Amino acid sequence: MGAEENRPQTTACRPIHEVAGAAGLLESEVHAYGRYRAKVDLGVLQRLSDRTDGRIVIVTGITPTKAGEGKTTSAISLTQGLGRLQVRAALCLREPSVGPVFGNKGGGTGGGLAQIVPMEEVNLHFNGDIHAVAAAHNLLATVIDATLYHDRPIHIDPASISWPRTVDINDRALRNVIVGLGGRAHGTPRESGFIITAASEVMAILALATDLGDLRRRLGRILVAQDRDGSPVSADQLRLAGAMTILLKEALLPNLVQTIEGQPAFVHAGPFGNIAHANNSLLADRVALKLADVVCTEAGFGSDLGLEKFCHIVCRYGRIQPSAALLVATGRALKVHGGVSERASGTEDIEALKRGAANLAAHLGIVRAFGLPCVVGINRFPTDTDRELELVRNLALEFGADDAVVNDGFGQGGAGAEAMAAAVLRATELPNRFAPLYSADATVREQLDLLARKVYGADGVSISAKGNRQLERLGELGLDKLPVCIAKTPFSISHDP
Amino acid sequence: MGAEENRPQTTACRPIHEVAGAAGLLESEVHAYGRYRAKVDLGVLQRLSDRTDGRIVIVTGITPTKAGEGKTTSAISLTQGLGRLQVRAALCLREPSVGPVFGNKGGGTGGGLAQIVPMEEVNLHFNGDIHAVAAAHNLLATVIDATLYHDRPIHIDPASISWPRTVDINDRALRNVIVGLGGRAHGTPRESGFIITAASEVMAILALATDLGDLRRRLGRILVAQDRDGSPVSADQLRLAGAMTILLKEALLPNLVQTIEGQPAFVHAGPFGNIAHANNSLLADRVALKLADVVCTEAGFGSDLGLEKFCHIVCRYGRIQPSAALLVATGRALKVHGGVSERASGTEDIEALKRGAANLAAHLGIVRAFGLPCVVGINRFPTDTDRELELVRNLALEFGADDAVVNDGFGQGGAGAEAMAAAVLRATELPNRFAPLYSADATVREQLDLLARKVYGADGVSISAKGNRQLERLGELGLDKLPVCIAKTPFSISHDP
Amino acid sequence: MGAEENRPQTTACRPIHEVAGAAGLLESEVHAYGRYRAKVDLGVLQRLSDRTDGRIVIVTGITPTKAGEGKTTSAISLTQGLGRLQVRAALCLREPSVGPVFGNKGGGTGGGLAQIVPMEEVNLHFNGDIHAVAAAHNLLATVIDATLYHDRPIHIDPASISWPRTVDINDRALRNVIVGLGGRAHGTPRESGFIITAASEVMAILALATDLGDLRRRLGRILVAQDRDGSPVSADQLRLAGAMTILLKEALLPNLVQTIEGQPAFVHAGPFGNIAHANNSLLADRVALKLADVVCTEAGFGSDLGLEKFCHIVCRYGRIQPSAALLVATGRALKVHGGVSERASGTEDIEALKRGAANLAAHLGIVRAFGLPCVVGINRFPTDTDRELELVRNLALEFGADDAVVNDGFGQGGAGAEAMAAAVLRATELPNRFAPLYSADATVREQLDLLARKVYGADGVSISAKGNRQLERLGELGLDKLPVCIAKTPFSISHDP
Amino acid sequence: MGAEENRPQTTACRPIHEVAGAAGLLESEVHAYGRYRAKVDLGVLQRLSDRTDGRIVIVTGITPTKAGEGKTTSAISLTQGLGRLQVRAALCLREPSVGPVFGNKGGGTGGGLAQIVPMEEVNLHFNGDIHAVAAAHNLLATVIDATLYHDRPIHIDPASISWPRTVDINDRALRNVIVGLGGRAHGTPRESGFIITAASEVMAILALATDLGDLRRRLGRILVAQDRDGSPVSADQLRLAGAMTILLKEALLPNLVQTIEGQPAFVHAGPFGNIAHANNSLLADRVALKLADVVCTEAGFGSDLGLEKFCHIVCRYGRIQPSAALLVATGRALKVHGGVSERASGTEDIEALKRGAANLAAHLGIVRAFGLPCVVGINRFPTDTDRELELVRNLALEFGADDAVVNDGFGQGGAGAEAMAAAVLRATELPNRFAPLYSADATVREQLDLLARKVYGADGVSISAKGNRQLERLGELGLDKLPVCIAKTPFSISHDP
Repeated sequence: MGAEENRPQTTACRPIHEVAGAAGLLESEVHAYGRYRAKVDLGVLQRLSDRTDGRIVIVTGITPTKAGEGKTTSAISLTQGLGRLQVRAALCLREPSVGPVFGNKGGGTGGGLAQIVPMEEVNLHFNGDIHAVAAAHNLLATVIDATLYHDRPIHIDPASISWPRTVDINDRALRNVIVGLGGRAHGTPRESGFIITAASEVMAILALATDLGDLRRRLGRILVAQDRDGSPVSADQLRLAGAMTILLKEALLPNLVQTIEGQPAFVHAGPFGNIAHANNSLLADRVALKLADVVCTEAGFGSDLGLEKFCHIVCRYGRIQPSAALLVATGRALKVHGGVSERASGTEDIEALKRGAANLAAHLGIVRAFGLPCVVGINRFPTDTDRELELVRNLALEFGADDAVVNDGFGQGGAGAEAMAAAVLRATELPNRFAPLYSADATVREQLDLLARKVYGADGVSISAKGNRQLERLGELGLDKLPVCIAKTPFSISHDP
Repeated sequence: MGAEENRPQTTACRPIHEVAGAAGLLESEVHAYGRYRAKVDLGVLQRLSDRTDGRIVIVTGITPTKAGEGKTTSAISLTQGLGRLQVRAALCLREPSVGPVFGNKGGGTGGGLAQIVPMEEVNLHFNGDIHAVAAAHNLLATVIDATLYHDRPIHIDPASISWPRTVDINDRALRNVIVGLGGRAHGTPRESGFIITAASEVMAILALATDLGDLRRRLGRILVAQDRDGSPVSADQLRLAGAMTILLKEALLPNLVQTIEGQPAFVHAGPFGNIAHANNSLLADRVALKLADVVCTEAGFGSDLGLEKFCHIVCRYGRIQPSAALLVATGRALKVHGGVSERASGTEDIEALKRGAANLAAHLGIVRAFGLPCVVGINRFPTDTDRELELVRNLALEFGADDAVVNDGFGQGGAGAEAMAAAVLRATELPNRFAPLYSADATVREQLDLLARKVYGADGVSISAKGNRQLERLGELGLDKLPVCIAKTPFSISHDP
Repeated sequence: MGAEENRPQTTACRPIHEVAGAAGLLESEVHAYGRYRAKVDLGVLQRLSDRTDGRIVIVTGITPTKAGEGKTTSAISLTQGLGRLQVRAALCLREPSVGPVFGNKGGGTGGGLAQIVPMEEVNLHFNGDIHAVAAAHNLLATVIDATLYHDRPIHIDPASISWPRTVDINDRALRNVIVGLGGRAHGTPRESGFIITAASEVMAILALATDLGDLRRRLGRILVAQDRDGSPVSADQLRLAGAMTILLKEALLPNLVQTIEGQPAFVHAGPFGNIAHANNSLLADRVALKLADVVCTEAGFGSDLGLEKFCHIVCRYGRIQPSAALLVATGRALKVHGGVSERASGTEDIEALKRGAANLAAHLGIVRAFGLPCVVGINRFPTDTDRELELVRNLALEFGADDAVVNDGFGQGGAGAEAMAAAVLRATELPNRFAPLYSADATVREQLDLLARKVYGADGVSISAKGNRQLERLGELGLDKLPVCIAKTPFSISHDP
Repeated sequence: MGAEENRPQTTACRPIHEVAGAAGLLESEVHAYGRYRAKVDLGVLQRLSDRTDGRIVIVTGITPTKAGEGKTTSAISLTQGLGRLQVRAALCLREPSVGPVFGNKGGGTGGGLAQIVPMEEVNLHFNGDIHAVAAAHNLLATVIDATLYHDRPIHIDPASISWPRTVDINDRALRNVIVGLGGRAHGTPRESGFIITAASEVMAILALATDLGDLRRRLGRILVAQDRDGSPVSADQLRLAGAMTILLKEALLPNLVQTIEGQPAFVHAGPFGNIAHANNSLLADRVALKLADVVCTEAGFGSDLGLEKFCHIVCRYGRIQPSAALLVATGRALKVHGGVSERASGTEDIEALKRGAANLAAHLGIVRAFGLPCVVGINRFPTDTDRELELVRNLALEFGADDAVVNDGFGQGGAGAEAMAAAVLRATELPNRFAPLYSADATVREQLDLLARKVYGADGVSISAKGNRQLERLGELGLDKLPVCIAKTPFSISHDP
């Protein structure tokens, strides 16, 4: 591969209409946003409702380290690799948020020769989705304070307000604020705060909604406070669901861009992994499944977080049956799990790697607990030695992976990912025994117990007195059988970083 | 015109590519945003740099009342009327902000049969411009607080920070806040506040920038605080101008939509009139002037505000020479100025109208002071009697208007505005004696004096001791010859509402 | 006078029981606080109820300057001078507050050879009065917030709370605070503030109460907030008047100390002059009037403040008829009023003195307006020249003073004040035409008008729209005939410093 | 004892000079505060420096319950009982704070026929001590904020300020506040809070100071913040120790009142038990030990708190050797420790009492660990049955008490406490093997380990990473051998309530 090809950003993108057409979308189903981005009209789901869904592969990872394991790059190169194998493949990713882009995290568009384009537009504003989420979120916050101020139509208890404001930037000074100052004319002073937009419940709802009506219903059910009698106050009671839905009308449509090798990439919705469900939108998955034979979707953080939530929440609400998982690991990250510092992780260290492989084993166990075929994708770093890569491969197979393949998508694009893509393709053809760990009528208490034992490797779950009271309250409100969305640190499999 | 045509919102818009093509834009110069909106590449200015500019008409008004005088509707119907006269016309408007849309003001897309479409998309998010402004504004705010927190690279004096945060909604509870709470880890507590995005200095800069480089230079010069030695701290010193510019890259491009009769409408940038310069972007004016023979641009509030700022600020930075002004008035509003309550303004009252006409005379005087031909456009309200309309017309002529014409664009679209359009067209062909009231090297002090005497009808200007100190400080900083942008109440010609 | 006598602080005080006995108090009426301080039991008023009151002289001053005019020193030396004349004299002063003692003001115990002792104990804590006032004040504040928090028994509107907290120190950082933070368990966030204890309404009430029952009634009538329906909330409604009274039980008793020449000095209560009534307690005056033939009481700030309030408020509530006024002036201060800087005020400047004497004339006019005989006491400063002192004396007589005498109490104690004391004594024997400027049934509006014209030399009074609404509200509440207590800057006779 | 004696509050107190004289104080050593209270001049310590100290008995208790065990009443009645035995006895107690008096706790003056008088004056203000502590504390706080504001003479890091403000009332709304608001003129906004005065470090220092010089040195060493370089900032660096000492000059003198049977009672200083050292002032103990043969001093909360701190802190700084302990228990409280609700604790329940007696055993163990003879004083409640009282007595003896005696001081005053007093007297004559658990050169780490094992019955101590860093920091500052003052919940012997 020549040097001149190694500049993904300057690569001539294909016009988005070409990409969309090649993917099977009609021109009327594509709303272009500039030349290289589009939103996809949901009419396509209706048009292709009789078509059989493609197969979906969950790209997940071991417990993340600062060394990085390249999960997004793996998902992109898997898609590119499938393309090289002439498979009709599509990619689904979460949207990056502006905040971290200017912070210390890289963007979310891959790296090396495994990238999606146009990179800058995806990383900034991206079709306005995150701004629309923020606008809807903050409109609700404004109306809560206005209702509090006027003390009608609902008598809100100011101390009960649990709905923060949001800003799409990592603004430390806004985390804890007092609002409503300036005397009687400016409202009721309250301690409150801003969260990053990716952590907004509105973002989580956008990612799970199945259509505009479902979006509106879910928005209306948001609980934001209690009234003076202790009854919960919802967005519907504040008559806000309609206005919020209008603000989110465009944001609900999946965004379409492309990999630098031309496969369609649906980059849509970006709920945080530590508090929300950590996967791209269900609608993106659905559209991709109608158009492609194999859909590669990346789940946030390790399998204990993103994959668990995909299997329990996205699959349940989206009636999706995943076909396989690609579990991304690197020798470097396993050495860090084995006790080596990040700085030293570039040096061969077979013993550390063996120690750290316990983490790989644990994640493989989680994937297998869901009944999913699993390929371990070993992302090659320049400093990894062949001995190390071989060891990871052997350990992965020993721990029960269906296959384990080294991937050099970063260095070679789809060509470097062909072997991994072939292995994943084989895995999707294995008999599918996928099943959630708990049934749809499990109570929150039962769900917590199962997750603790089967995913986190605990003996059971210990719930504080306060937690028990809250669970009882959920039961009273009839909310005790909703699927649990665990908020936890991504930096270990337990709750202790 | 048949009844079925009287439903502007359901009118089939023409695809934006058709509108753009008819206006003379190449396909490569048009970035579609969905089917009916686009952003225009600035390359068109280069391509047509040799073409002579069209003529520009400033649509201004008498002092606004709550009764409303329909300035936006007049600007749209003037454009539509010119279209009926086979004139190659284009419209320039400010963008509405989301905040007021959900508040008590109507949207900014006209009314009746004088509208621009697609209405909802223009009123909400509109190509993300206002969100981009908010993101750039708040990124600067975040970095100020982070610099304060780390006390490097600049030692910012926390009490000197004058840069608020912004939110694109009228959120009373955010006007006065304390930020940086939560203990040492969350920053330095400070009293601060949020302004509405239309009031952001970033919005004002976006509206005045001539290209990306100019945008960056202007952003870099924003002063946000002082350091511990009292020296001003700029966005450039915080190394933020580049990142802010990237965030505003798309927002800088003028947006293109259409009137419901198909004329191109450039709706771009929305700086508030009471504190900023109250006109759409200079770039929208420039692009429109290259494409159309007559450009109708609406200036915010009365002639003492929007027109004055257009003439002194937009014309100076944009090297624009306006050809005429359309001064919008209604019988109803003049009666309110004559002392009648809004409720009673629907009843004929010749005496009140005569008293209120003093306001019309004053605004005509301001327009003439700039040497501009002036047509008074009398917006017809259903309750206005023919006697009243005739009286307004006669008074307008008596006060020195070049012409005065009743306009029924609201009721009949372009057809109802033909007579007014013809009068305006004639006015643009009169000899042009346009000149600003002060020269480019007038000091701030001289500008204030001239504005007070020539625009506000005062004997001179009285500056407080504090004001004098600030003026001296401007002189020291070499900023004393910048054009003044007066912040005043729109509700009278003086500073006292 | 020998050098060894010139050390007032080391002077051997007489035991307080001796001072009390000489003043005519029984041992059972004296509660010693240490060896040199006491509180006086109110039983003495009962015991001596048949005895004719002595005469009372109000010690007042010209408009204060930073140069100082020595009013407290004059009051003390007048008492000492009367003692030298074998007159049974007593002194009444306000208590100093701890706050300013550690700030930039001197203590309130006089200077040179005109002092009261024990100085340090009077300046610090002084029998706990100010602490008791603060405790009672803050107890009420605590209960207001607790009532707000529990929302019973009264539904307090948080934005209406007008009762601050207090601290007996000039603590800038407490002036504006937000209280009630820390989440639901810690109350309702509110913007509030701390005032200095001397400015507490409780201090003003303590100074005006005539006995324990009157104290309780007045405390109970304090208005602190409104309920949700807009009705005023009083301390009585919060059931706090009793507890506050218990906390103030000892503080209500006048404190007894002595001048360094042995006269009894009642130093009791310290309401601020700019917002409260600026005089020592009415009970101290009453006790002193039963025990002494001539009582010297110092009124705060200039005659427009302390003397006006003494004549209208103290005299009305205490049924006291003052006999004369001593108006303290210095050549130095008059020169400052004449435009000389403080630094230059030590140099002879006859012209400046003449210009500044307008201030003396104005104050003389105020005193005469009340029908009071007036002696001007010219406090000698070392830098004053004989020519200057003679000029002040002549001008004072010319402006209508009954006499004008140079006083050197600072340098010589009572001996230096004999001439002034004799002049004052003669003045008290002049026919008494004392009368308040307005009658007890004047409305607040009428009082304001009279004060503006007769005291402040204005043409009348201009009341803002908001002020008018508040006056109407007072009328509705039946409070419109209470005596007005003007809050104004002490630094001029108008409201503009 | 006749009914008319059963009204302690109306009992005619003896004048305080008589009580003082009978106790052996000279008139010049007694500063009366009203008729029934006094402060004792420290000169008495000098005068009697050669006299042998009396013996001191620490009155301590089992772990407190809401049922109450009557420790203060036991201490008073022990003193009264000793009086009946013709022993020259004196009582030492902490001062109550105003705050809790208006809250839910009773006052601190005993109950029934075991009381100190004058009750109200002791409960309110009491000679101004707590106000003086608050004034000194808040003066320091003011100067910290003023220093921060002026940024000189020390560059204080605002986030490092650890010195709160204080108020002598339980004011929930002041626990968490933001100070310094109101713009640049009013200081630097900061999150701060108010503590109750009993919890002030100034109160703790007052209670431990041995004379005025020692007080000043200790005040000067208070650390309040860090400067920008991270160096600690002390009161001495802010030049505040002198002013604070002056404010505390009178407060340092022990207060003298009397039991209702006439024994001298020194009620002085009131540091909180949960965070401070929980005992009356060391100076009160010292003066009492010079005057009486047996001094009864009450230590706050259970033996794990007040007695531990008395033995390690007061004895070390005051060179005091205690002679015995009276461990107060009640059947009722032991039943509550045995699992019975407070409501049911009035019913006989032998089994619960046996279970709860484990608490008594643990406290006896703590007392014995210090080598102190120990009498268990069983406070009789009306509902306790003879079987229960007998059981407590037997268990106490079984657990190793030197004696165990039922006390009815509440019902009968000194007469009801004679048997207990006699037992205590015998205990004080036993061989004294008192020794602290750790030596004066033990490091903080060693102290914590010993306290955990010997007092709290733990296997050792586990220190968090943050705690370890702080201990290292103490070592660097040379503060690592100061005696530890444990802040813990009084409601169990462990750290978990």
